[in-house]
Amino acid sequence: MRGFVSLVGAGPGDPDLLTLRAVDRLRAADLVLYDALVDRAALRHAPQARWAYVGKRAGRHSIEQETIERVMIRRALRGERVVRLKSGDPVVFGRGGEEALALAAAGIPCEIVPGVSSAVAAPALSGIPVTHRGLASAFVVVSGHAEEAYGPVLRSLAPGAATLVILMGIATRAATSAMLLARGWPADTPAAVLFSASRPDAFAWRGTLAGVASAPRSEAPGIIVIGATVALASQLQTAHEGGQRAAAR
Amino acid sequence: MRGFVSLVGAGPGDPDLLTLRAVDRLRAADLVLYDALVDRAALRHAPQARWAYVGKRAGRHSIEQETIERVMIRRALRGERVVRLKSGDPVVFGRGGEEALALAAAGIPCEIVPGVSSAVAAPALSGIPVTHRGLASAFVVVSGHAEEAYGPVLRSLAPGAATLVILMGIATRAATSAMLLARGWPADTPAAVLFSASRPDAFAWRGTLAGVASAPRSEAPGIIVIGATVALASQLQTAHEGGQRAAAR
Repeated sequence: MRGFVSLVGAGPGDPDLLTLRAVDRLRAADLVLYDALVDRAALRHAPQARWAYVGKRAGRHSIEQETIERVMIRRALRGERVVRLKSGDPVVFGRGGEEALALAAAGIPCEIVPGVSSAVAAPALSGIPVTHRGLASAFVVVSGHAEEAYGPVLRSLAPGAATLVILMGIATRAATSAMLLARGWPADTPAAVLFSASRPDAFAWRGTLAGVASAPRSEAPGIIVIGATVALASQLQTAHEGGQRAAAR
Repeated sequence: MRGFVSLVGAGPGDPDLLTLRAVDRLRAADLVLYDALVDRAALRHAPQARWAYVGKRAGRHSIEQETIERVMIRRALRGERVVRLKSGDPVVFGRGGEEALALAAAGIPCEIVPGVSSAVAAPALSGIPVTHRGLASAFVVVSGHAEEAYGPVLRSLAPGAATLVILMGIATRAATSAMLLARGWPADTPAAVLFSASRPDAFAWRGTLAGVASAPRSEAPGIIVIGATVALASQLQTAHEGGQRAAAR
């Protein structure tokens, strides 16, 4: 009996957005290592497994990445079925690729189970399609964590050429919006900041690129969306909420 | 009793990548309108519903977009639960936004049920993470359908600033790769063309940007990926296949 690791995307938060394969892997798991932002309702699919929180949070003590990888390798070598449960999709800023490489180097079979990415789902659930005929034929997903990450994209991309989705970018929102204005993006480009999308405590700020720098902050994780399709939210959000209520009846 | 429409993402093809919410909406549906590329295995979740194929295929006769919208509105007004089942995510080049606007204008409640986007999942299932620390802090998803869609992005984005994912771009691959080379992307940038990702008949071509123009074509839909993380596929694909086999035991 040989163990293995499933790197599983949990989706944006709402446990209904887990995939059937994610649920299947949770049901069979011996050990689940889960991140911050993973909704604990997912635990109901794996009541038999041990669950270990290995999340990182900005500014707080967290378990080292190497420790997580060492635990996964050790447990898999003992024959256990390990699920590494990550918020969103495991390879969209989830270190999924790094962990998969470490496991591959140790000879551990390691599958990726794609998840619903917050980069697309958070805007959609707020009435903002990342693409829309006539408004956006492309979208860019970028980490706002550090200048070397977002700088090359935001300084080069032609204004309006794509919907911009900035993850982990609340702290740097003044720098990123200044960079876009300097590049020539119109100050009145529609913009939104989405907090806790798909969760019961979701809330959103909507305005323009010029206002992003002074948009609210929150303890909750936030996603910045900039582009023409943000303007559709006023029409689509109401219809979407009506649809969700109707489906829940 | 008021009807409504759920615009549901079916994921990249493998029916195990449907979300729990997608399955819930299918189970309750009276009518399912489904696209090309939606795996018919999804039908097992809605045996009670009427299913209607409304897919479009390049160069073939297809049902007009307005007809699809008119049918959805008429059925919802009769009180039916309509599922519009789309490949991938409904707002990533899925016309989900357009259909939602038409429904909203008709006063029909219309929810979006996000799906696993092929833009991220197809590369991941082929061992290619769209982001990876030290290699890519951003990714761009662009339609290769027409020059006015991809031109503004590919002509402006700084070489190597993001992983590029080009959907619906097989026919225009010579033009898009020439545009990137002209912009200064190195000819040896790793590149892949992924066909039927997540399906039993999946196959992939791997090479460099210089080779994309002469990469194979296929009747199957293809996704082009260009960037440094494509080089990880040789290590990750084997581990992933081993993990999938182990999970299936």
